[in-house]
Amino acid sequence: MVADFESTDSVRSGKPLRHVQTAVFPTPMELHLGETLPSIEVAYETYGTLDGERSNAVLICHAITGDSHLAPHDDEDDPGWWEALVGPGKAVDTDRLFVICSNVLGGCRGTTGPATINPATGIPYGSDFPLVTVEDMVDVQKRLVDRLGIRRLRAVIGGSLGGHQTLSWATRYPDYVQTAVVIAASARLTAQAIAFDVVGRNAIQSDPHFHGGQYYDTGEFPQTGLALARMLGHITYLSSEAMTRKFDLDRHAPRDIVTDFEKRFSVGSYLAYQGEQFVGRFDANSYITITLAMDNFDMGDTREKRLETLRAAECDWLVLSFSSDWLFPPSQSRELVALMTRLGQPVSYCEVETDGGHDSFLLPSPIEAFGPLVAAKLGARAPRPPRESAEDDRILELIPPGSSVLDLGCGEGDLLARLRERGAPLLCGVEVSTASIAATMQHGVEAIDYDLNVGLPEFDDNRFDYVVLSSTLQEVPNVEHLLSEALRVGRRAIVGFTNFAHRTLREMFSLEGRAPKAPGPYSHEWYDTPNRRFPSIQDMLDLCEKMGVTVEEARYYDDTRGRVIGKDEDPNLAAETALLVLSKKIA
Amino acid sequence: MVADFESTDSVRSGKPLRHVQTAVFPTPMELHLGETLPSIEVAYETYGTLDGERSNAVLICHAITGDSHLAPHDDEDDPGWWEALVGPGKAVDTDRLFVICSNVLGGCRGTTGPATINPATGIPYGSDFPLVTVEDMVDVQKRLVDRLGIRRLRAVIGGSLGGHQTLSWATRYPDYVQTAVVIAASARLTAQAIAFDVVGRNAIQSDPHFHGGQYYDTGEFPQTGLALARMLGHITYLSSEAMTRKFDLDRHAPRDIVTDFEKRFSVGSYLAYQGEQFVGRFDANSYITITLAMDNFDMGDTREKRLETLRAAECDWLVLSFSSDWLFPPSQSRELVALMTRLGQPVSYCEVETDGGHDSFLLPSPIEAFGPLVAAKLGARAPRPPRESAEDDRILELIPPGSSVLDLGCGEGDLLARLRERGAPLLCGVEVSTASIAATMQHGVEAIDYDLNVGLPEFDDNRFDYVVLSSTLQEVPNVEHLLSEALRVGRRAIVGFTNFAHRTLREMFSLEGRAPKAPGPYSHEWYDTPNRRFPSIQDMLDLCEKMGVTVEEARYYDDTRGRVIGKDEDPNLAAETALLVLSKKIA
Repeated sequence: MVADFESTDSVRSGKPLRHVQTAVFPTPMELHLGETLPSIEVAYETYGTLDGERSNAVLICHAITGDSHLAPHDDEDDPGWWEALVGPGKAVDTDRLFVICSNVLGGCRGTTGPATINPATGIPYGSDFPLVTVEDMVDVQKRLVDRLGIRRLRAVIGGSLGGHQTLSWATRYPDYVQTAVVIAASARLTAQAIAFDVVGRNAIQSDPHFHGGQYYDTGEFPQTGLALARMLGHITYLSSEAMTRKFDLDRHAPRDIVTDFEKRFSVGSYLAYQGEQFVGRFDANSYITITLAMDNFDMGDTREKRLETLRAAECDWLVLSFSSDWLFPPSQSRELVALMTRLGQPVSYCEVETDGGHDSFLLPSPIEAFGPLVAAKLGARAPRPPRESAEDDRILELIPPGSSVLDLGCGEGDLLARLRERGAPLLCGVEVSTASIAATMQHGVEAIDYDLNVGLPEFDDNRFDYVVLSSTLQEVPNVEHLLSEALRVGRRAIVGFTNFAHRTLREMFSLEGRAPKAPGPYSHEWYDTPNRRFPSIQDMLDLCEKMGVTVEEARYYDDTRGRVIGKDEDPNLAAETALLVLSKKIA
Repeated sequence: MVADFESTDSVRSGKPLRHVQTAVFPTPMELHLGETLPSIEVAYETYGTLDGERSNAVLICHAITGDSHLAPHDDEDDPGWWEALVGPGKAVDTDRLFVICSNVLGGCRGTTGPATINPATGIPYGSDFPLVTVEDMVDVQKRLVDRLGIRRLRAVIGGSLGGHQTLSWATRYPDYVQTAVVIAASARLTAQAIAFDVVGRNAIQSDPHFHGGQYYDTGEFPQTGLALARMLGHITYLSSEAMTRKFDLDRHAPRDIVTDFEKRFSVGSYLAYQGEQFVGRFDANSYITITLAMDNFDMGDTREKRLETLRAAECDWLVLSFSSDWLFPPSQSRELVALMTRLGQPVSYCEVETDGGHDSFLLPSPIEAFGPLVAAKLGARAPRPPRESAEDDRILELIPPGSSVLDLGCGEGDLLARLRERGAPLLCGVEVSTASIAATMQHGVEAIDYDLNVGLPEFDDNRFDYVVLSSTLQEVPNVEHLLSEALRVGRRAIVGFTNFAHRTLREMFSLEGRAPKAPGPYSHEWYDTPNRRFPSIQDMLDLCEKMGVTVEEARYYDDTRGRVIGKDEDPNLAAETALLVLSKKIA
């Protein structure tokens, strides 16, 4: 087997794009770092139809080497780099939405960049092209959006550098952005990610054909350096697992391609191929310009400064990360989510399980996993009707309509959906699987992918009226910590749990000397139960006492017989499950 | 704060080494891939004194850019790259051992390499230097060892490429190697690691000053390409966490060094500095030669072939990996350990927790952690006297002297140490912390760092007479799997566990309705016990029945009163702890 050489990145064939439009802005534009561009041209494409209220526009921001061509416009058109996500009936549904994608400032696919003629000199800018920032890229997009007569975007969406643009849009033009979808991005690059970019730029700039960036009229260009930078970039976009899968078994069987680069190993011939392909369609000065913009993107060097930057946003967020992305690791996305949570901004988050690495945002299989989350966030589909359950019925009884609720271990979000139907100012679920997150979001409720064993996103004190822990506390190792966090974040906590001191279990344990097991909530074997804590009602009450927690209300149930157990009926013996409404003791 | 620019790698100042000796081998040497070198010179240093029996020699193999200078020979001498590990009273104790370290074949620090004059042409080999392999490097070292009159090495030790040399020594000259210490190495490189090397070599070979490798008489050399390769290498040797720590807060405050490379970011000026420093002291052709040897190192492309390669070894092993090493990730070391285990070879293994990345084998703090393991493996210190306990006394009673034993969850190895004192053909412990591994090894017993929640190394069926699980089964989620593995690997399993149906607990549970808690083994609170399974004696017997496991012997104890509970005394009620001797039912 010879490794598949198909490129996974966002660069296309280099053919002229038939549907590109150009917007010309002849007035000077002041850049973020002080320099000025005398005029700007922007290459862009649109998909779908702008509605009468100009309210259905979605702006998509591309990554380093991408362009405006998201998807084919018709059957004869070239494939697009995000056609799995954008198109008629897709997650970003062009039957319903008007989608705009423009080539970035500094690029080489139609928008003003280093290869553009500098009107002051009559030759290409080359190294005279100013240092642009992500903010400048966004300002150019804003000119375009304004020109199109749009005052508010239904959403801004982007992965990698596109995610940074999205963050910039949301924080700098908050009234323009209803929803922001930030994929595989971060508040600033890791030092490691910058280091890779530095080596790539050094390779280009030390290429003797670079001529200090003024190579356009020399008949040569720094193609070796650019190819090296591209090879290196490629490694960082893939996961090690995926490279092993792709190249390990036939590592000594390279493809025999035409190249001056080493092609000794299978992975070597792949990199050479990728490098050679790239130099034919991308400008080295644009590569330097855009990677520098990315490396300089910085929402603040401390947590406080990052909070300050984010504070301006007024959108609701969807943040996505990929488990095998080591260039923009999930920990960076979780930090963004924690900051947004701290600021009380509506946010959903999911870490998609995949071995696709950073490139995952462009790959069909991860898109299949996260597409439904994007669709749900854009309200593409009607909310799914919630499933009712006796357990949820009882919890609903305890929560006054109009309360804000956080559901820790929300499953598919059915309780939250029913709360939503009753009207609730703020709802959020926490779960771990992508499917549960997607299901919860399809109810129109924010959901966050956080492992309760590890920690909670940073919800503010008393952010919610109620925090629900339904059969959750008994599955975590750190019961005390989670309960105290719930009571910090919520005014009240509702804790639903199995009473492991129910009569049947006691009898089994005391008479038979066997670990309790019975139909219903006790049906697990001792050696494979998902539970790891086995409290009785009395235990839970004791813990509350110890923690200084007030039990405002306690309800006890015999689920088998479908009846409520009164407080005078020895619930610790008679009840199978309990629901406690807890609050902090007022000091 | 400006980032610390001190190099963490193994390259020294470039000054001539005062204590280097040279061994000349004037006869032709046939290389592994078919070519021949007409003669070889080897630069080496030695430390300590060879004893009369020539039995105390340790060979240390260096990594890509290292050399023979491990440690200072006297107060005036240069620092050495492994002086934290090697020297008087150190883990590799030169008061006791005779330590040899030679520069590798293909290098540029004294041993024959591409810069050596080719006797056939009278000019340096340059690109005519043949493709050498790790096997060739080892063959040259073997010539040196033979010349020194040594027929058996107390140990061969190496990290990274040095680890690959060690693997080659142990499998190709098994009668020469008593102990092999393999650090941060693997059976073959990952595709990702090869990919980084490919980009580095491409940078060198596409440098216009490379002249196809024949640059020695041109007055110039591919210093830009070599610097780029070095920068890239540097990134892969560090962990992302360490780079963040070092460069993140002052990322925009680079050091103002003299360089043509980009020095815009703190990490950029660091890389430029490392690149510039390196080209003054290392030869580009050697860099290509040695990285190719590393990339070509391959113990087999399938598990079966790797087993076949390893099968030849007759040494005992110590394998070490570093938690943050992503170039040679711990999973690769665990695979080696699994293969060695499968072959029944004595092996200890530890994954050292550190953020030092691949470079950890050279860094003081990780060396402090793993030094004791190396010392223990070399028998540097007298075995530590074991601590006795009643629990271990009882287990010892059940194991006939001369039995082989695997202790899963061996703690500090006290039970194994006592078994060793009684004489045992084969002993091994499994634990998770470096301190426990070190403590167990200090008893002279092999110990392996494996998380029982995740899996066991691949011990052969019936490898041990007894597998001990003392208070272990109740702490793992997958009880059935671990028990069946124990009974596959051992002829018998001895399972010691807490009886959660003891009278005190039953009374507490049935009368008070509280999760059982009592002095001794039951003293944990329900909400923070390390246990996650709570079997009674009867439960464990039921599980054995269900699994088709024979209970050969059962002993029950009232620990509080220090007495044995007879079978007629209702042990499930009266015993606090139980010890079962289990075996597979004969079909």
